[in-house]
Amino acid sequence: MSQTQTCLSLVLRHRPSGAPRREDFDLRSDPIPTPGPGEVLTRTIWLSIDPYMRGRLSDRASYAPSVQPGEVMTGETVGEVLASADPGFAPGDIVVGARGWQTHSLTPADRLAKIEPHGPPLSHYLGVLGMPGTTAYSGMTDIGKPKAGETAVISAASGAVGAVAGQLAKRAGARVVGIAGGAEKCLFVQEELGFDDCVDHRALDLTAELQAACPNGIDVYFENVGGRVQEAVFALLNPFARVVMCGMVSQYNAAEFPAGPNLGFVVGKRVLIQGMIVSDKPERFAEWRARARPWVIDGSLRYREDVTEGLENAPEALADVLAGRNFGKKLVRVGPDPAG
Amino acid sequence: MSQTQTCLSLVLRHRPSGAPRREDFDLRSDPIPTPGPGEVLTRTIWLSIDPYMRGRLSDRASYAPSVQPGEVMTGETVGEVLASADPGFAPGDIVVGARGWQTHSLTPADRLAKIEPHGPPLSHYLGVLGMPGTTAYSGMTDIGKPKAGETAVISAASGAVGAVAGQLAKRAGARVVGIAGGAEKCLFVQEELGFDDCVDHRALDLTAELQAACPNGIDVYFENVGGRVQEAVFALLNPFARVVMCGMVSQYNAAEFPAGPNLGFVVGKRVLIQGMIVSDKPERFAEWRARARPWVIDGSLRYREDVTEGLENAPEALADVLAGRNFGKKLVRVGPDPAG
Repeated sequence: MSQTQTCLSLVLRHRPSGAPRREDFDLRSDPIPTPGPGEVLTRTIWLSIDPYMRGRLSDRASYAPSVQPGEVMTGETVGEVLASADPGFAPGDIVVGARGWQTHSLTPADRLAKIEPHGPPLSHYLGVLGMPGTTAYSGMTDIGKPKAGETAVISAASGAVGAVAGQLAKRAGARVVGIAGGAEKCLFVQEELGFDDCVDHRALDLTAELQAACPNGIDVYFENVGGRVQEAVFALLNPFARVVMCGMVSQYNAAEFPAGPNLGFVVGKRVLIQGMIVSDKPERFAEWRARARPWVIDGSLRYREDVTEGLENAPEALADVLAGRNFGKKLVRVGPDPAG
Repeated sequence: MSQTQTCLSLVLRHRPSGAPRREDFDLRSDPIPTPGPGEVLTRTIWLSIDPYMRGRLSDRASYAPSVQPGEVMTGETVGEVLASADPGFAPGDIVVGARGWQTHSLTPADRLAKIEPHGPPLSHYLGVLGMPGTTAYSGMTDIGKPKAGETAVISAASGAVGAVAGQLAKRAGARVVGIAGGAEKCLFVQEELGFDDCVDHRALDLTAELQAACPNGIDVYFENVGGRVQEAVFALLNPFARVVMCGMVSQYNAAEFPAGPNLGFVVGKRVLIQGMIVSDKPERFAEWRARARPWVIDGSLRYREDVTEGLENAPEALADVLAGRNFGKKLVRVGPDPAG
């Protein structure tokens, strides 16, 4: 794979209706820019594809501004420094940061972090060691707080966030039950990730299967999906249960949101339901990276990636993630990875 | 009013369907009992009527066991000691405790607390200084945490819990907006309780009226009612809002619960929704009584009571509370009050 001599960017053409498609974006070609003072020029190696990106494509009010038509779509990337006008970075450095759906980026140096090249695969810094892993860590640390003997349920269990959330609950001594789509993912969640059980959300009687997997009810729920999975889990919550509201991917493409659960049970069961956004505590990123890196290296923190080739396929990769067609952390390989 | 020579008790005949009615109970007559070792005989002066009682009449699983047909209905009372087989109590003492819908009770001494007779009206120990006041205090202290400059919304604002919750938020420096049923209650909430504004939940466009009353959105919501009031409030919650889930009285008579809010907003706005039951922290009762008593005496904590005469009318009093036909803390006067 050779690098392009121009900078290619995926620019939002118009807001998607339903699932994002290739036609919602223009592939724009620009000259490769030169860094001004304090800026760093990188070529993109890995682009992260995450469910939250659907919100950036919508004009619904959200915690972060939407991408406007005509703008380059945002996203976390791992890249290689090509030129630097900042003393902290030099050509050849590998960096991680929030840039965009493009082959080259100019970024202020203070928004990049250098990656140790001789460690875990570079792509891991967008997943298990990056934003999704930190999300799982923050959510379990601040809200879920699983304890030994409790039961924790994780939806989207084979995904980038869910895989880490469940393994953290397992480390805390909880019984951990995943929810995933299809037999293959469920097998992976149990055999590879080491969850105690995993329920297929396509089951005809999801509540009954979940009940069988959680004979002592549910104390912690890490919510990534919403919809009927949420309904089934909420019905089994124990007194003083904690619900980490991390995402509701099942409705990200929806124009209208379906009704939700009647919240009467929250009172009598003293349930805590709390939303979180990982960027609220930026210090958690480095904290988690330091904690998880040895676990990744010694193989005790398990993790799976699902790679799409080529920047131009990023919209389809996002559509796959929103529909659960990915199997593990979704990444787009934009340029060659020097680490292999 | 003279005391009966027998003990009259309201005994559950069969579970109510919808609103509780007189016919759901039998009025049973028994000889007045004699206390055994460690027991205290009291005559009931005041019986508290509270929304949670509807749950005790239902066979739905809840945080507290249901009253079974054939059993005396439970409830908090203020009474006068007639005879005591415990050294801590003597005839003439005024006591508060959880006993039942009856004219006389035998109670283990350790479940009674003596009341200072020359202070606030005795009935207040079932309201502003009792369980409802403590509920408001616990909910605001542990979950709501209103801060200066924030906006707090209180539903059932003229009721026993809401009146205190709002005044606590006001003391914390928040802008406080009540929601109540009808112009008379709204006027009371503003003029007497000192809330900044009050919205009638019967308004045609509740959301618009609430929005006008909360120009900076809502940071704290003290939830007592559920239903369309909940929906209107949730739509206006700010990032990092806290929802004290204290009750959802609008559905306590319902056989089937309506659907609830789609919880997607909880993620992006990092909202906290948490249920509470006052009895989880029993130490709070004495703590609140000590804190609030001077405020009641100096008149800075405002409060209204709504009295029904006669034990036999307790079922109707409960039906009134569940329908919002009370105006202030509902009490049943069961026997003469020596304090006047």
